[in-house]
Amino acid sequence: MPDVHRPHVVVIGAGFGGTRVVRALRDADVRITLVDRHNFHTFQPLLYQVATAGLDVGDVTFPVRTLLRRHRSASFVMGTVTAVDLAAQTVTVDHGLTLAYDFLVVAAGSVSHSFGVPGVDEHALALKDVDDAVLLRNRLIGDLERASRGVLRGEPRPELGIVVVGGGPTGVETAGGMRELLDKVLAKDYPELALEHLPITVVEAGSRLLAAFDTRSSHSAAEALRGRGIDVRLDAGVDHVEEHSVHLRDGSKLDAGLVVWAAGVAASPLAAAVGTELQRGRLRVEANLSLPGHPNVFAVGDIAAVPGADGAPLPQVAQPAIQAGRHVAGEIVAAIAGRPGTPFRYHDKGSMATIGRNQAVVEFPNGMRFHGWIGWVLWLGLHILYLMGFRNRASTLVNWSWNYLTYDRGARVLARTIADRPD
Amino acid sequence: MPDVHRPHVVVIGAGFGGTRVVRALRDADVRITLVDRHNFHTFQPLLYQVATAGLDVGDVTFPVRTLLRRHRSASFVMGTVTAVDLAAQTVTVDHGLTLAYDFLVVAAGSVSHSFGVPGVDEHALALKDVDDAVLLRNRLIGDLERASRGVLRGEPRPELGIVVVGGGPTGVETAGGMRELLDKVLAKDYPELALEHLPITVVEAGSRLLAAFDTRSSHSAAEALRGRGIDVRLDAGVDHVEEHSVHLRDGSKLDAGLVVWAAGVAASPLAAAVGTELQRGRLRVEANLSLPGHPNVFAVGDIAAVPGADGAPLPQVAQPAIQAGRHVAGEIVAAIAGRPGTPFRYHDKGSMATIGRNQAVVEFPNGMRFHGWIGWVLWLGLHILYLMGFRNRASTLVNWSWNYLTYDRGARVLARTIADRPD
Repeated sequence: MPDVHRPHVVVIGAGFGGTRVVRALRDADVRITLVDRHNFHTFQPLLYQVATAGLDVGDVTFPVRTLLRRHRSASFVMGTVTAVDLAAQTVTVDHGLTLAYDFLVVAAGSVSHSFGVPGVDEHALALKDVDDAVLLRNRLIGDLERASRGVLRGEPRPELGIVVVGGGPTGVETAGGMRELLDKVLAKDYPELALEHLPITVVEAGSRLLAAFDTRSSHSAAEALRGRGIDVRLDAGVDHVEEHSVHLRDGSKLDAGLVVWAAGVAASPLAAAVGTELQRGRLRVEANLSLPGHPNVFAVGDIAAVPGADGAPLPQVAQPAIQAGRHVAGEIVAAIAGRPGTPFRYHDKGSMATIGRNQAVVEFPNGMRFHGWIGWVLWLGLHILYLMGFRNRASTLVNWSWNYLTYDRGARVLARTIADRPD
Repeated sequence: MPDVHRPHVVVIGAGFGGTRVVRALRDADVRITLVDRHNFHTFQPLLYQVATAGLDVGDVTFPVRTLLRRHRSASFVMGTVTAVDLAAQTVTVDHGLTLAYDFLVVAAGSVSHSFGVPGVDEHALALKDVDDAVLLRNRLIGDLERASRGVLRGEPRPELGIVVVGGGPTGVETAGGMRELLDKVLAKDYPELALEHLPITVVEAGSRLLAAFDTRSSHSAAEALRGRGIDVRLDAGVDHVEEHSVHLRDGSKLDAGLVVWAAGVAASPLAAAVGTELQRGRLRVEANLSLPGHPNVFAVGDIAAVPGADGAPLPQVAQPAIQAGRHVAGEIVAAIAGRPGTPFRYHDKGSMATIGRNQAVVEFPNGMRFHGWIGWVLWLGLHILYLMGFRNRASTLVNWSWNYLTYDRGARVLARTIADRPD
């Protein structure tokens, strides 16, 4: 049984940051309560694979309670945090549960953000969690089944093109994955729809794809996408989105059956609810990742504005969250022992993005860059290495080997997994 | 392009019967249209594994369009058949599509049937398709998360026991699978709920489990279930079902968090819509499986009353459907060639059911019977052999090996796979 005299650490969010805090506190003399609205951890970098039918939901998710089994004194609450009271040191979860904490780690992540562009919320699909990914996949396949029936009734084929807004890793990987899914798999499934030449467009507001990468990687990615027949529009801001079209600021209009919004994320609304200072919507943190004036409260991951070497906030991706989670666990142990805090230092491990079969860009912080097939093999290996838990790794290997050898995708059944979450 | 001068075969249903007709007509000089409301084939014998988190949806489903790729002149329509006009030789699919046929195969299967027991439709969960299986799994895990939150709020644990109504293979396998899931996996995930001794009850109206098996197998199954702490109630008719209880005809009441209705199935409502003679709700067929008075229309699988060697209709399981499908394909080829029809003869290949880890009953028609570990290994091998397609086999092997070695179950994330079927 948990000892009520040991310090109680409450962790909000079971993403890369929150789970790393819990893991790194395994041998610490604390009680831990992890809160998340899902009962699973999501391996977000591979969500686009679920959306493009390369992997199944079980391959990119991992039950939280299994992660906690190795911890004698960690428990899980499935629920949404509705309030944080820094003065009373309590966290309120929906369904009337209040948790008193000695230490709090806010790791609630980020949400897809429309940046106020009209029509995005109504007509575009995000790719931020597993539900989004499955909805995207089901919407695409459902549209094709509808179009197929229409063709049998003698109607013309509707517009089925895909517009992906956002040229970051998610946008690039989704566009590349969709191209392969359409050309290698769905074109064979729906010969009546002639999907080989279906237009796919990537719309990027900036002057290059993969802005966080070296410019040579950006050019290589754009070249690779164009070589696969994907229209890449740079310096192209979106004015508004309608049901089957994207309208750009220069007045041009892109027709689309499906609009994917991968243009950016914003910190979880919980950041504002915490009540401390924000920086571009993210929680401003001290050098040791605690909140200003609250040495027992920390923020890690997408919800925190953690300054990098150049002073700008670190990107909202997995590595900063993982490293910050590990650091905060050390800070909590130090605080209990009465030792002073130490500043967090981020170690850049590089960046990568895949364009599709045999094609990826990988950059290491020492300046080494890999493109093409070697980059792709590196990308594969590193992603499998980071996938949590043996089962997901093995199943992912099976799925990817199958996809690679046969150009097939297994995960494209339109199953209606009825929601019955306890909320 | 399909040749409009070749005979058009319309097949309703992509289950074991319908897909076998299509497969066996691969080299025939016909056009085929397969109609199903799902875009995938379901391996129904393993649905209970999805319900008990042993397998994921992708392991027991297979996209119909992939099955059809090998067939030059087969197409697929996703939709529900709303009418069959035997005089006009047309099939009407929802969404305003009418298909004219030269040959029709009705293979629409069966649905879960409450047999008029009050409360079943409202309060019990069926296990007839993938949606049912996922709902069952999500309901169980959702109930546990709710109960866990309640315990944290200081409330008593609610009733979480499971009642399975029906002692056929589905009921026996579901009860055994639930016992393992609870004791080996969920008990560790929810130590606060003490799930090891959660009551699981199998309620069977007849005098023995597995009525289609040898009596010795029935006794062996009942013994194995009881040895695992499952309460087996024989000669126990259900009077009515309420939200959290099952009321038996003898006046006794079983409290339950979850009621699974595996007491039986009835032919698809399409049987009555066809308009020919029915036998216990199933389509009566001639010796060659054609409908009386309609030599170009056939019925196979659960929707057809196909007489076995003893004159009684064959059981509504996979083998009769598969064999009938193969026979009907031959009948269609014969009719086109002007040859007379031949009567269908069923070859009993035996029966099997698993009670759980290391425990199954397998009967061969020559009288050989296997119980315990040997039966279980046979059951495993034969199911993997019959799973359609390499991908499902490999993924199932990975999942099962993992489950066996670690006593873990991967497929228990509460993902809300939002419905977006084109209907």
